[in-house]
Amino acid sequence: MTNELVEPLLAGNRRALARAVSEVEDRTVASRGLMAALFPHTGRAHIIGVTGAPGTGKSTLVNVLARTYRTAGKTVGIIAVDPTSPFSGGALLGDRVRMRDLAGDPGVFIRSMATRGSLGGLAHTTADVLMVLDAAGFDRILIETVGVGQAEIDIASAAHTTVVVEAPGMGDEVQAIKAGVLEIADVFAVNKADREGADHTAMALQMMQGLAPSPAAHHRSSAGSGPAHPQPGAQAGGSWLPPIVKTVAVRGEGVEVLCQWIERHAEHLRATGQLGRREEARAASELDHILRDALLTDLTHRLPPGHLARVAAGVARRELDPYSAVDQLLLDYGFRR
Amino acid sequence: MTNELVEPLLAGNRRALARAVSEVEDRTVASRGLMAALFPHTGRAHIIGVTGAPGTGKSTLVNVLARTYRTAGKTVGIIAVDPTSPFSGGALLGDRVRMRDLAGDPGVFIRSMATRGSLGGLAHTTADVLMVLDAAGFDRILIETVGVGQAEIDIASAAHTTVVVEAPGMGDEVQAIKAGVLEIADVFAVNKADREGADHTAMALQMMQGLAPSPAAHHRSSAGSGPAHPQPGAQAGGSWLPPIVKTVAVRGEGVEVLCQWIERHAEHLRATGQLGRREEARAASELDHILRDALLTDLTHRLPPGHLARVAAGVARRELDPYSAVDQLLLDYGFRR
Repeated sequence: MTNELVEPLLAGNRRALARAVSEVEDRTVASRGLMAALFPHTGRAHIIGVTGAPGTGKSTLVNVLARTYRTAGKTVGIIAVDPTSPFSGGALLGDRVRMRDLAGDPGVFIRSMATRGSLGGLAHTTADVLMVLDAAGFDRILIETVGVGQAEIDIASAAHTTVVVEAPGMGDEVQAIKAGVLEIADVFAVNKADREGADHTAMALQMMQGLAPSPAAHHRSSAGSGPAHPQPGAQAGGSWLPPIVKTVAVRGEGVEVLCQWIERHAEHLRATGQLGRREEARAASELDHILRDALLTDLTHRLPPGHLARVAAGVARRELDPYSAVDQLLLDYGFRR
Repeated sequence: MTNELVEPLLAGNRRALARAVSEVEDRTVASRGLMAALFPHTGRAHIIGVTGAPGTGKSTLVNVLARTYRTAGKTVGIIAVDPTSPFSGGALLGDRVRMRDLAGDPGVFIRSMATRGSLGGLAHTTADVLMVLDAAGFDRILIETVGVGQAEIDIASAAHTTVVVEAPGMGDEVQAIKAGVLEIADVFAVNKADREGADHTAMALQMMQGLAPSPAAHHRSSAGSGPAHPQPGAQAGGSWLPPIVKTVAVRGEGVEVLCQWIERHAEHLRATGQLGRREEARAASELDHILRDALLTDLTHRLPPGHLARVAAGVARRELDPYSAVDQLLLDYGFRR
């Protein structure tokens, strides 16, 4: 049943792809075999995380980025984890209509992770869907998330290249978010750059980079103080100084430059061997999650039915603290000796 | 060493409390014993989640709510998970200064979860810190999160009473977020209600409730169609229709009414036995997380050093898919028979 999907999916059949993604999202029994069969075909896509606060226009930017890649002959997968994204149905009808030109293109596949699952499940499912799109042969995969939530920031930063989108005049609350996402950025996009304050936003980013305790920031801190003015991008020591690109996504302005920087970063990751290290970190995190799930499933199967619920009820009645309850359980059922 | 902290903490010593919270946040060895000793003293606080998008003014609302509770003679713990909150240091200096009147009050304890850990760790640590504040005897505990991220919404909705904060004129992107947080609200606050569009926002919320497939929404959908106009709050069948409260937090307006609705919801939970069920759900989720951690720790201790990293490297090189790698590992090391 699963193998039915593998061949057409690898051959580029969109219906098979859509069904495979659904199987993986629903964690069906068949999805396990599917993942195993698809896995050897993964590892070719360049994965780009795009994150930013609501209102920065990152969905439009993702849209235009995708079109730019299409013009260059690359196929594009889009995963929208952002609940405010028009891809996820979270925005006005006008935006969704505007997205349709992408949806009609066979070189583009869009999937929104609209369903809210349990904590952590989001990242896990996103990783699996990513794997399926990778196996399906998309050259670039864009993951759009909200740069406010912890899980969403983690998902975006697990990409090969992370684009952090800012916009001028978003108010102090949103400005403050920067501190948290600053350290994950490989490329900054100051979108809506035709608005007042765009220079100020770009300069603020540059200054914040100067304050960050990273090798790149160290280079940057000497900016303007002499001939050692560093250019953004790959540095002599193998580090990377994130460029700051101004864009006006609704008019397509600056998006080609943004695209070039993403490609340069991809090249930098390959040239320095950092791509392999990012892949290993991604694999480790994926393994960790699958292991936890598997261990808990095995345990649950060995417990009497309803046992965990009874323990939870006891904890809720304050008969036993949850840590001691877990110790007891592991001892009682032979998981710990 | 741990027991050193327990007695002064239970006696109300603030320094012991701060140290205990740090131990729990850092997951020190001592924190386990500490949690076990404190646990029997928990279960008395009413836990209130306050969530909303950046810019809705929820930090100010939390501030004024805390002061309202203080005036009523209740002690208040505040946990700020929101990276944009002035409690977390994420806002302008002016805001932080404004918060200081709370910080100087011995009946208030504020803790910000500013450090970004790994995915899922945030909820776990928040639950543990919550337990410590509960044991320390705070009457009300307010947890402030950003109503955009998955993890943050999960944390807020694990509270006894969840307050969802909206504000008029936040733009379409933010309006769209509502759909995701609508179902978790026990009470809606339309903050900045002196601004244009507040009535519109309140009405939009009322309409969205009418569309939601919940028993409460079913009641609401008949609103205005005759004498069966339902009042918000506890319904005849034991369900709860979330009230919509207009507030102007910076001037303290409407906050007492909001406070009264929170208390009424608390009473409703007690009267209907739903409090026990919410406690059991919270305990089950806490157990689940602790179990996963414990099982993975046990496994890691039984593996040769560096084994997991080697498996991850193999997965990164596409030699084996992560699901098969996990199956293999569990078989090889006797975790599965």
